Amino acid sequence: MEFFLDTADVEVIREFKETGLINGITTSKNIVIKLPLTEEGLKACKILSSKKIKTNVTLCFSAAQALIAAKCGATYISPFVGRLDDIGENGMNLIREIKAIYSNYKNIKTKILVASVRTVDHVIESGMIGADVVTLPPATLEKLYKHPLTDKGLKAFLDDWKKTKQKIL
Amino acid sequence: MEFFLDTADVEVIREFKETGLINGITTSKNIVIKLPLTEEGLKACKILSSKKIKTNVTLCFSAAQALIAAKCGATYISPFVGRLDDIGENGMNLIREIKAIYSNYKNIKTKILVASVRTVDHVIESGMIGADVVTLPPATLEKLYKHPLTDKGLKAFLDDWKKTKQKIL
Amino acid sequence: MEFFLDTADVEVIREFKETGLINGITTSKNIVIKLPLTEEGLKACKILSSKKIKTNVTLCFSAAQALIAAKCGATYISPFVGRLDDIGENGMNLIREIKAIYSNYKNIKTKILVASVRTVDHVIESGMIGADVVTLPPATLEKLYKHPLTDKGLKAFLDDWKKTKQKIL
Amino acid sequence: MEFFLDTADVEVIREFKETGLINGITTSKNIVIKLPLTEEGLKACKILSSKKIKTNVTLCFSAAQALIAAKCGATYISPFVGRLDDIGENGMNLIREIKAIYSNYKNIKTKILVASVRTVDHVIESGMIGADVVTLPPATLEKLYKHPLTDKGLKAFLDDWKKTKQKIL
Amino acid sequence: MEFFLDTADVEVIREFKETGLINGITTSKNIVIKLPLTEEGLKACKILSSKKIKTNVTLCFSAAQALIAAKCGATYISPFVGRLDDIGENGMNLIREIKAIYSNYKNIKTKILVASVRTVDHVIESGMIGADVVTLPPATLEKLYKHPLTDKGLKAFLDDWKKTKQKIL
Amino acid sequence: MEFFLDTADVEVIREFKETGLINGITTSKNIVIKLPLTEEGLKACKILSSKKIKTNVTLCFSAAQALIAAKCGATYISPFVGRLDDIGENGMNLIREIKAIYSNYKNIKTKILVASVRTVDHVIESGMIGADVVTLPPATLEKLYKHPLTDKGLKAFLDDWKKTKQKIL
Amino acid sequence: MEFFLDTADVEVIREFKETGLINGITTSKNIVIKLPLTEEGLKACKILSSKKIKTNVTLCFSAAQALIAAKCGATYISPFVGRLDDIGENGMNLIREIKAIYSNYKNIKTKILVASVRTVDHVIESGMIGADVVTLPPATLEKLYKHPLTDKGLKAFLDDWKKTKQKIL
Amino acid sequence: MEFFLDTADVEVIREFKETGLINGITTSKNIVIKLPLTEEGLKACKILSSKKIKTNVTLCFSAAQALIAAKCGATYISPFVGRLDDIGENGMNLIREIKAIYSNYKNIKTKILVASVRTVDHVIESGMIGADVVTLPPATLEKLYKHPLTDKGLKAFLDDWKKTKQKIL
Amino acid sequence: MEFFLDTADVEVIREFKETGLINGITTSKNIVIKLPLTEEGLKACKILSSKKIKTNVTLCFSAAQALIAAKCGATYISPFVGRLDDIGENGMNLIREIKAIYSNYKNIKTKILVASVRTVDHVIESGMIGADVVTLPPATLEKLYKHPLTDKGLKAFLDDWKKTKQKIL
Amino acid sequence: MEFFLDTADVEVIREFKETGLINGITTSKNIVIKLPLTEEGLKACKILSSKKIKTNVTLCFSAAQALIAAKCGATYISPFVGRLDDIGENGMNLIREIKAIYSNYKNIKTKILVASVRTVDHVIESGMIGADVVTLPPATLEKLYKHPLTDKGLKAFLDDWKKTKQKIL
Repeated sequence: MEFFLDTADVEVIREFKETGLINGITTSKNIVIKLPLTEEGLKACKILSSKKIKTNVTLCFSAAQALIAAKCGATYISPFVGRLDDIGENGMNLIREIKAIYSNYKNIKTKILVASVRTVDHVIESGMIGADVVTLPPATLEKLYKHPLTDKGLKAFLDDWKKTKQKIL
Repeated sequence: MEFFLDTADVEVIREFKETGLINGITTSKNIVIKLPLTEEGLKACKILSSKKIKTNVTLCFSAAQALIAAKCGATYISPFVGRLDDIGENGMNLIREIKAIYSNYKNIKTKILVASVRTVDHVIESGMIGADVVTLPPATLEKLYKHPLTDKGLKAFLDDWKKTKQKIL
Repeated sequence: MEFFLDTADVEVIREFKETGLINGITTSKNIVIKLPLTEEGLKACKILSSKKIKTNVTLCFSAAQALIAAKCGATYISPFVGRLDDIGENGMNLIREIKAIYSNYKNIKTKILVASVRTVDHVIESGMIGADVVTLPPATLEKLYKHPLTDKGLKAFLDDWKKTKQKIL
Repeated sequence: MEFFLDTADVEVIREFKETGLINGITTSKNIVIKLPLTEEGLKACKILSSKKIKTNVTLCFSAAQALIAAKCGATYISPFVGRLDDIGENGMNLIREIKAIYSNYKNIKTKILVASVRTVDHVIESGMIGADVVTLPPATLEKLYKHPLTDKGLKAFLDDWKKTKQKIL
Repeated sequence: MEFFLDTADVEVIREFKETGLINGITTSKNIVIKLPLTEEGLKACKILSSKKIKTNVTLCFSAAQALIAAKCGATYISPFVGRLDDIGENGMNLIREIKAIYSNYKNIKTKILVASVRTVDHVIESGMIGADVVTLPPATLEKLYKHPLTDKGLKAFLDDWKKTKQKIL
Repeated sequence: MEFFLDTADVEVIREFKETGLINGITTSKNIVIKLPLTEEGLKACKILSSKKIKTNVTLCFSAAQALIAAKCGATYISPFVGRLDDIGENGMNLIREIKAIYSNYKNIKTKILVASVRTVDHVIESGMIGADVVTLPPATLEKLYKHPLTDKGLKAFLDDWKKTKQKIL
Repeated sequence: MEFFLDTADVEVIREFKETGLINGITTSKNIVIKLPLTEEGLKACKILSSKKIKTNVTLCFSAAQALIAAKCGATYISPFVGRLDDIGENGMNLIREIKAIYSNYKNIKTKILVASVRTVDHVIESGMIGADVVTLPPATLEKLYKHPLTDKGLKAFLDDWKKTKQKIL
Repeated sequence: MEFFLDTADVEVIREFKETGLINGITTSKNIVIKLPLTEEGLKACKILSSKKIKTNVTLCFSAAQALIAAKCGATYISPFVGRLDDIGENGMNLIREIKAIYSNYKNIKTKILVASVRTVDHVIESGMIGADVVTLPPATLEKLYKHPLTDKGLKAFLDDWKKTKQKIL
Repeated sequence: MEFFLDTADVEVIREFKETGLINGITTSKNIVIKLPLTEEGLKACKILSSKKIKTNVTLCFSAAQALIAAKCGATYISPFVGRLDDIGENGMNLIREIKAIYSNYKNIKTKILVASVRTVDHVIESGMIGADVVTLPPATLEKLYKHPLTDKGLKAFLDDWKKTKQKIL
Repeated sequence: MEFFLDTADVEVIREFKETGLINGITTSKNIVIKLPLTEEGLKACKILSSKKIKTNVTLCFSAAQALIAAKCGATYISPFVGRLDDIGENGMNLIREIKAIYSNYKNIKTKILVASVRTVDHVIESGMIGADVVTLPPATLEKLYKHPLTDKGLKAFLDDWKKTKQKIL
């Protein structure tokens, strides 16, 4: 699963690049054209797709919308899970439905880009469903590798480390 | 999954052709012969099938009927899900049963064409089951890509868009 | 489960009254105040509730909204299942969630009034969940008791009837 | 669960009366008025019910029909399970749905009378669901207590019996 | 759950009586009349039941048979689980079915007496289903309280015991 | 899934041959030797199998029997589902068990021939399990393609047909 | 289920009081003593509990901790669901476990106060599990009754309203 | 659920008494007689039970043993879950089975005392099943209320506390 | 699935050889070395395995033991299901666990040999799990193909047979 | 599944080497660099990975952490299951989540090394999930092959062995 970082802050981007954790930048000037899930957006998607130009159809909130975007040749479909959660729906269920539909048809090449990600659980579930990309803000990305038991264990680990007299690099 | 548009209105057909959403027209003069699921219909189906003429066996309401149509070499089987819903049955369960049966026998080539589709959910479930074709009226097709959160999000999206000074095409 | 008929057509109302099938009229000038699920609506609901005036909080689309309406003392909560189906959600799941929540708290007296009903299945599921009221248009009400096997069986039944020389009334 | 014997053969009826297995006769001239599940039937049902005359609403094939019959005060509802099986539906699921709905509403007093029973399994499942009455033909009733292991065991049992020199009565 | 010991060996009976494990003797000359599950047996059962004489209807192999025995007023029904296992069926499922049916009808007073018990698992499952009585041979009864970890633990326990200088009684 | 017609009536056979629905005749003098599931039958089966003569081992009522017939090289195994239903067992569960066992061992080539078929549901379930052959009497075969909604829909279909001025063949 | 508002902003509190949605203020100077889930906190809890002083044991992250707080007589236990979500656990599962444990023991009177609530789904699930109290910040409380379909429907509703010439209070 | 502390260390016992967490001491000289699950143990149990002397039947490793101990009138049954885990069985499943069996029979008064407890999960599951008593060593008891997020949160809590200038007691 | 006959009686072996049902003899002097599941047994297993000598590691009662035997290169692992049943465990669950573990690792070649088989159900379940071998005593082997409905059906079959004038061989 | 022995005791290591049970030593000076799951650790992991140096990222407690380690090219990820159990979580569920995520992405080559193993059940479940490596202390490794029924059976086995006069090796 790829991670796209959702920030325009160059400093932050540079820092995360070093860790090897991110595969792209959601908000940067890349060559993927963002299109809204409207009739006009779908028509544009069809034309761009026929010209091999990459598209990201955004503002997806139902599996029917995702199916239609795939039929129009979208490169990415961006379901906004957090915004669904905000109105009392379960955003991750939408990812599950889209994955199930896309898996049934071999000619669908559209990738699922989970957007509007807010919690660590959104990322874990995306991985368990097998989504293609998750786009997430730096704050959520940092939370992914923090755990109080890691902090607690690290101290003991470092003590043991000293005793073995090994060195990292 | 293919979409067949269920209308004879040429204007409507032209409009949807542009979007790339539809793969055929249910009601037009195509070269698929429609046959009812009766003894006579099945005999005709067998003869046409042996002559490589395409057939669409319609008015299917049970998995047993779908199994028999497949044995007679039907190109398409058309279960009418909405009409089953009308009498208190669950039309989509029929699609699930037919899919399960057809998947068990490699020599069955008959395609499942979900007919009498009335709701967005019929289309989503058809996709999750892996039906081959859905035939649906223009009004339902339009509903597939409408969502109030898309409308709401679009305004914010357009505002952001202006700021980036990018252009579509 | 009560049935409220969703029509203003006096002739239709009179006809259904005879069958004993309906318990009220959704659209008539009854003494239940309809309130939208907005901040203002909820404040009004609270005041009316404290004055023992009956209220029907409408335009409910999430279980969180239904929980809040109950806290404000609504007499009825009206989830609109058909409109949720239109955007690719499952309207009846909302009824299940509301029923589960209301059942957990004895002090909640709010009744579930299933609105925006469109199919026979909506009514059957409402009954299986144990909703309090279903409001439905005359066309759907008629569909509830139609079944092709009933028609088919009736002819044989009438023939048998003649032979027994019994009479209805 | 009560058993109604579905025969008019006086000899057969007398024989089964002795066994204590049957609680009534489906086809005899009893004081339950049979009514078909039509608009007219439902109106009659409502009137008879208000006059405390017992009614049996027959030709029921959907849970919606059963719900409506209950609203009209039917004493019995007769779902025809075998005829549903004939068209590829699962008749016993209908009994399960009706039972679920009736159990949710305390004011429903209508009893479920499983009709068009053809197999031993129909009777066992009726018992497991908790149906009120099963009406069945003499041939099916006899099958209920036959089992090849009983026959096989009986011989050994009788041999042991002789040895114990006990007597029945 | 009661245990009936399935033996005529007076010595064995006396020994088990001391342990308090057994509630009755299956094979002794008690005042429960054993009847086979045949038409004649059922007729006798009805007469005896009406005279308040206790009956045990044996050789039961299906839930339909158990339902019928209950209708004839049997005091006990004896399903033979081991003999069903012998022909590749699952005897304990029969107990589950009978329990489900009997639980649905308050007027059924017949007790379930699990017969032809062969394994420890038969007894455990009978308890988990909530059968009324299990009749079992002495060899199976002994197995019920044997466990290699008990033997292993007992030695350690006895050693500890000595150290505490407590005494039993 | 193949259909074998269970009749010796030449006229009926000829009629069904035309429809293309049947793949063989159960009762005719074909070159498959029928053998009962006895010790002698199994020995004969082994010898015939080694001589490449086709066999159909009948009277199968348990998965253990089916496993043994497969070990003896049977070409077909014939479980009798209706007769199991008659004694309160679930015949189709046997088909499920046999299918599960046969699927686990690649060297088993024996085909499952579902016999003693009585209902439409037996055929649908056989298809959903993936049985190889179903043998069924003409009356059941006819029921497979009958449905009251097909009859109802056919009238409307024919009216539409006239308007399109198309012709079959 | 009660709502405690998690704010110290008097203006906000006053505003929500009017709606009738809130039952208490989490952060105000109420007479419930907050205690951390430490050995000292538990000892204090036991003493306060014996003096009938109300306590709220906070910083609960496991069902074992909740069980212990209940044994010490806590009035409320506060599991922090959002903070568990932050480290990749499922906070609501903890509520389910605590509810299951508390339901098993009649002598436990401790109420479950769901804390660190961040999403609408946290509130809906709390209601479905049957938690006693949810404490939530004003921003989340507002989200509970917002839904784009309500906004959309309100316009149509208001138009209808004008036509009926009714007035709210 | 009660906690019995499994230690003879008077200092430890005194310390835990203060917290209110423990309801008894497993190893002390109390007036419950410990008996092993052997034939002799069961006989003694029956006699003691008839004299109203409390008994704890230990070394239980199967549901059959627990059923038998209950029949002999044991006050407590002690299944040793950790020792079962040691041989690759699932000790907590045994608690589930015993609970299911005891719940089916109203005359069983024997309490389930979960022994050989080693992990926090053993205690949580015991609570979810509804066991009566858990006996656990001091080290496990301490683990029950430790959580790294509690430690982390406590610091912030204490800082807030200072600011509010409240005091405990 | 292979059958190994568990007997040393040459007469019995010869008889079953004819039926083609058995693939080996458990107790005969074959070239598979039996080794107990002890530390010494495992060491011997490793050496024999490296010398391509076949081994059968017996007395297996847990999935952990089976995993270890596979790591030591055992040709067969023999879980003793009946002996587990005797102490109130479910022997077949062990087979399911071993099968699940072995299926996860391609380098494990060890075959599952189900030993201590006592019932027909043990054999059927072994087949449904996909065990490699079952070793069973002659008495159980005979039970596998006996069924009272086969006996009952055979008589009718033989009568029909006479009428067709066919002959076996 | 590989076993890494978690000890530095050379004597113990030598002894287990003989049994063939262990594939590596967790604590020895091998060429796998251990790195903690921190930002620095992840950066180091990325560099080492690009230089083909093997890494083991330890102190993993959530599926999100495991996903990130895989993205940084870790050779092994070490989730510490026992330490999660200590705070009332289910450590093995973490293994299941990691396995599910890793299985969805073909480019992930990181192996799951189950660490902080304390019970036999941890090892069995690791095998059923399909973990790559388990690292375990000598005491747990020994428990894996001990079973009281093996001890009990061994004696009988040895007696039989003498009678057959065979010899091992």
